[in-house]
Amino acid sequence: METNRILCLGKLCVDIIAECEDFPQEDSDQRCKRQRWQRGGNANNTSTVLSILGAPVEYLGTIANSHELGFLRDDYQRAGIIIDNCVIVDNCSCPVSLVLLSSVSGSRTIIHDSGSLPELTHKDFQVDLGSYAWVHFEGRPSAAEQVKMLRDIDNHNADLEENDRITTSVELEKNRPVLAQLIDKADYVFISKDYAKAHGFYSKEDAVEGFVDKVREGATVICAWGEDGACAKPKGEPTISVPAISPGTIIDTLGAGDTFNAAMIHALCKGAVLQSALTFACKVAGEKCGMKGFSGLRYTDLSFEAESDGSSSGSK
Amino acid sequence: METNRILCLGKLCVDIIAECEDFPQEDSDQRCKRQRWQRGGNANNTSTVLSILGAPVEYLGTIANSHELGFLRDDYQRAGIIIDNCVIVDNCSCPVSLVLLSSVSGSRTIIHDSGSLPELTHKDFQVDLGSYAWVHFEGRPSAAEQVKMLRDIDNHNADLEENDRITTSVELEKNRPVLAQLIDKADYVFISKDYAKAHGFYSKEDAVEGFVDKVREGATVICAWGEDGACAKPKGEPTISVPAISPGTIIDTLGAGDTFNAAMIHALCKGAVLQSALTFACKVAGEKCGMKGFSGLRYTDLSFEAESDGSSSGSK
Repeated sequence: METNRILCLGKLCVDIIAECEDFPQEDSDQRCKRQRWQRGGNANNTSTVLSILGAPVEYLGTIANSHELGFLRDDYQRAGIIIDNCVIVDNCSCPVSLVLLSSVSGSRTIIHDSGSLPELTHKDFQVDLGSYAWVHFEGRPSAAEQVKMLRDIDNHNADLEENDRITTSVELEKNRPVLAQLIDKADYVFISKDYAKAHGFYSKEDAVEGFVDKVREGATVICAWGEDGACAKPKGEPTISVPAISPGTIIDTLGAGDTFNAAMIHALCKGAVLQSALTFACKVAGEKCGMKGFSGLRYTDLSFEAESDGSSSGSK
Repeated sequence: METNRILCLGKLCVDIIAECEDFPQEDSDQRCKRQRWQRGGNANNTSTVLSILGAPVEYLGTIANSHELGFLRDDYQRAGIIIDNCVIVDNCSCPVSLVLLSSVSGSRTIIHDSGSLPELTHKDFQVDLGSYAWVHFEGRPSAAEQVKMLRDIDNHNADLEENDRITTSVELEKNRPVLAQLIDKADYVFISKDYAKAHGFYSKEDAVEGFVDKVREGATVICAWGEDGACAKPKGEPTISVPAISPGTIIDTLGAGDTFNAAMIHALCKGAVLQSALTFACKVAGEKCGMKGFSGLRYTDLSFEAESDGSSSGSK
């Protein structure tokens, strides 16, 4: 049985992206150059990048039994992401974002319909924990349910040798007060720039130093800050900072943070030390910004192998 | 075997409609009140209304084997429209219109992706003509192919008694020069206000009088002109005009012309004289303008029965 799978939990969304010459005038009737669909949501994007990086990955969440279902199933399959434990929910609508891209101005206008798809509950968390090396949570308004799932994982870990335990991570991205209860429930805590700024922190170092007191013993806070790079701080240890790695021309930053998280999880899963993992994650996120979507990452040399002793590592 | 079916041919489109509080600011990220999908395209809308009016109706066209297919199949089934002869085309994209509705201004902004779905060809026109009482064509850029289909129907009719013949109609809506070749190939020719204006006619009467010379012997030109009502002129006979019938409050005029055409076809199929058919069609189109979409027409008293002698009729 596979025991090294990475499980990502979050909320699924479909992005319907219209590539327009320019942003439309109100009440006009115009043609766009192209429309395309993209599976979205933070944990979904992270799953996609993990799969591209070569990790065995599963997504767990609710999926609406709506017109988008066929597209989503195909897309998960194309991406090589397992969805066997997902809950298909009847009589609800999928969250959808209409995204209007303007070639002229470079703007990205989003019209979001949050749909009526319910969040995954603790009752839905019916998985064989023995299959997973890592479980990652996109912090959701249903954080109280996610806390119960994290408790299940802690209970599962309690009887195991350190090497056999599941590592956990949570992402605090949107400024929702309800997410605060997740901060001391996982081994790695990803803090977004937006979340940090909403809490009064204006640099990545201030952010990790400000939040590290709230995480549990042995846990690490990680914060990526766009073109200012990223840093991480294990509780009681010094902060490690690394610079961003620019792709040259910025093409599309949508999902860059989710890409960073995927690359961090992948490298840490492979046994990388924090500094190597951060450097690798900044490299992958930088590459992503230089391309539309994620699939081009397949053709970039981004393999990551931990060095043999497992205590140090490097990207090659 | 059923012999009284109405067949409608055209191009299929999906409308993704976002009901917004206001038209979005460029580069903003906002929520909308609701998104909904609607099957669109002129002949599709006409089919929908024919089915609601109680006519046995079939749609014939190409359908993309794309993410929208599941929705479309369900929607045709819900609408009671037969699609058994449609051609499902792989590796192409469905025409999609994103429609942004603003509650504040009442505006309707359309961003259309024409997709890569091919038009139906004469080779695809593999139907048992014995099943149909009426065949209606939405004039398409592929008009030359539609001319061949109309010729097949004329050949089929040539050996039949008058009562057993298929009646044909064409709709000239968009100002495309290629549509002109259809005008003398059908029994009824629907001219849109836009098409008429593009040809220099500024009233419904001017339009039917201007176009009637171009139709074939025994054929009739019909023209609806929004709040100015509708008129019809059989070749060599006087023009008949009827006023519009207002629903009181105008809610949604999208597809009002397609509704008018459906009601005309339905009434004429039932043996109505032209004046009764026009009056009935203006009534149904007016009702449609007073509601969102078409489905509310189900709950309106719009039944139409021809009088017994078949030479005159009335809406009741």
